[in-house]
Amino acid sequence: MTDINRQVLLVSRPEGAASLDNFRLVETPLAPLRDGELRVRNRFLSLDPYMRGRMSEAKSYAAPQPLGEVMIGETAGEVIESRHAAYAVGDHVVGMFGWQTHGVSNGKGLRKVDASRVPLSAHLGVVGMPGVTAWYGVNRLLEPRAGQTLLVSAASGAVGGVVGQLARRAGARVIGIAGGEHKCRYVRDTLGFDACVDYKAGRLAEDLAAAAPDGIDLCFENVGGPGFDATLALMNAFGRVALCGMIAGYDGEAAPIRQPGPILRARLRVEGFIVTEHPEVWPAALAELGELVARRELHYRETIAQGIERAPEAFLGMLKGHNFGKQLVALG
Amino acid sequence: MTDINRQVLLVSRPEGAASLDNFRLVETPLAPLRDGELRVRNRFLSLDPYMRGRMSEAKSYAAPQPLGEVMIGETAGEVIESRHAAYAVGDHVVGMFGWQTHGVSNGKGLRKVDASRVPLSAHLGVVGMPGVTAWYGVNRLLEPRAGQTLLVSAASGAVGGVVGQLARRAGARVIGIAGGEHKCRYVRDTLGFDACVDYKAGRLAEDLAAAAPDGIDLCFENVGGPGFDATLALMNAFGRVALCGMIAGYDGEAAPIRQPGPILRARLRVEGFIVTEHPEVWPAALAELGELVARRELHYRETIAQGIERAPEAFLGMLKGHNFGKQLVALG
Repeated sequence: MTDINRQVLLVSRPEGAASLDNFRLVETPLAPLRDGELRVRNRFLSLDPYMRGRMSEAKSYAAPQPLGEVMIGETAGEVIESRHAAYAVGDHVVGMFGWQTHGVSNGKGLRKVDASRVPLSAHLGVVGMPGVTAWYGVNRLLEPRAGQTLLVSAASGAVGGVVGQLARRAGARVIGIAGGEHKCRYVRDTLGFDACVDYKAGRLAEDLAAAAPDGIDLCFENVGGPGFDATLALMNAFGRVALCGMIAGYDGEAAPIRQPGPILRARLRVEGFIVTEHPEVWPAALAELGELVARRELHYRETIAQGIERAPEAFLGMLKGHNFGKQLVALG
Repeated sequence: MTDINRQVLLVSRPEGAASLDNFRLVETPLAPLRDGELRVRNRFLSLDPYMRGRMSEAKSYAAPQPLGEVMIGETAGEVIESRHAAYAVGDHVVGMFGWQTHGVSNGKGLRKVDASRVPLSAHLGVVGMPGVTAWYGVNRLLEPRAGQTLLVSAASGAVGGVVGQLARRAGARVIGIAGGEHKCRYVRDTLGFDACVDYKAGRLAEDLAAAAPDGIDLCFENVGGPGFDATLALMNAFGRVALCGMIAGYDGEAAPIRQPGPILRARLRVEGFIVTEHPEVWPAALAELGELVARRELHYRETIAQGIERAPEAFLGMLKGHNFGKQLVALG
């Protein structure tokens, strides 16, 4: 075992698109543990769109990522050294250790996970924050019922895939939007959506209208921009929209809503949410998602970059939609 | 008493802005009543922004106004002839008789009003549909509390003025947006708002930020467009938006939301509504509003055009904001 921690720092803020030179890889010696601390060897790092927001100084619900520090991020790993009574070497934990191979914690904010029934990496995705995000939006904001039509964008992604599968289990007809026929086929054939529209085909509004002949009752919006406008135009009266992401491309600014008329005309309820603000739902949501994954009734897909040094490149690719399912970095 | 009904018909649909030649004044002889019918001499016609929507074929929550028929509209008047058991000559009634001096009804959809405590015209405004619209948005969607800041656009208008006064009674700090210093002074001095921003002064975002040093918790949106974008940018976490109108200028299309990011960042709840879909609140709302007006605790203002023949011109002026308070037409 090496005694070097490999870390990725944010060293500059993007002007426009984020780029590789916003990041720097450094190596830092491991410091000895103090009483009450434990050390984790991170095995997987989660890459998520919200990180792009933190890179900017723009007003957000969270403080910006400080320059010169390890990039924020959620990780899954195992305890390799412990001076903490509640943690033993070999325990699997999920925590916010950031873009680095090793982390030290006093246990606060850590979540022990069972990596025997559900693979360790899945605790960063379908049985982690993205999964609970989907669960909250579906069960607390949209509440799909049999006979309703639900639309979810970024349908092959970590959140979108779970949204559609949960909504289908509730009896709704589910339509996805995804980029490319390859992803759409996966959304239909593996995730079991009723339909999937390829936004790259260039006929988004027409294809969406054809896929939703009875209109759309519920929308879980992950992207914003033209796809959201096309969705709004098809919303039925008293429909609901759970707003989870709307920064199409995530170059810093939310894409305009060019045709907001349906929000009024169709008397929609549009609601933004941040899943970390609803800790009360996490235990039940994680238990349900874990059980479904263990029974192989909830499907997911991962794109895994190899090595901490590939994290910046993988992150930039994810912002452009190059990932297919949950984007992770394997840390060795 | 003349036996001629003077009526304004919609004879063509606007291309872009509505214009005088979309309307035609005609005179029609009165037909004899049948059993169960009553005849009303309309005294006041209400002119409202929603009428612009009905002039177009565009998808809306209501069917378009048919060509060649009397323009839709709410009126207040008195019964001048009755073969209906529940109505006597001299009764004051509000109904949807449209742009005409006389109307015949079987009583369905009519509302008897007391014109002794509250002037007849006010039953089309502050103690009518606009007042109940304000009441519903404030009490059912926004629920202002002491210490909160509420923003309402078109603050000198029939809806906006009531919104602000009701919110202030609930203890909120109330900021209005209105067009011109004359209207702003009325909003502050007569309606008692804490502040009013003049959107015509050309510094909307800056003036709004200065008027809302603690941000905005609640927004009652009547207009849409740049004012709504500037408002969204100032919204506090978990704020609420009641969406009542967003077709800035009402030339047919809703103005874009150019900066929708705050809906997600501030976890807002944005909700469109149509007051006629909530008949259960009308009796209590009308009773409360009527009582406040009778006690002179709720202020309002009217702009009254004289004569049915001036209705088209007054309507077009109202779409441009030339009215000051509730726009009515006195029908003689």
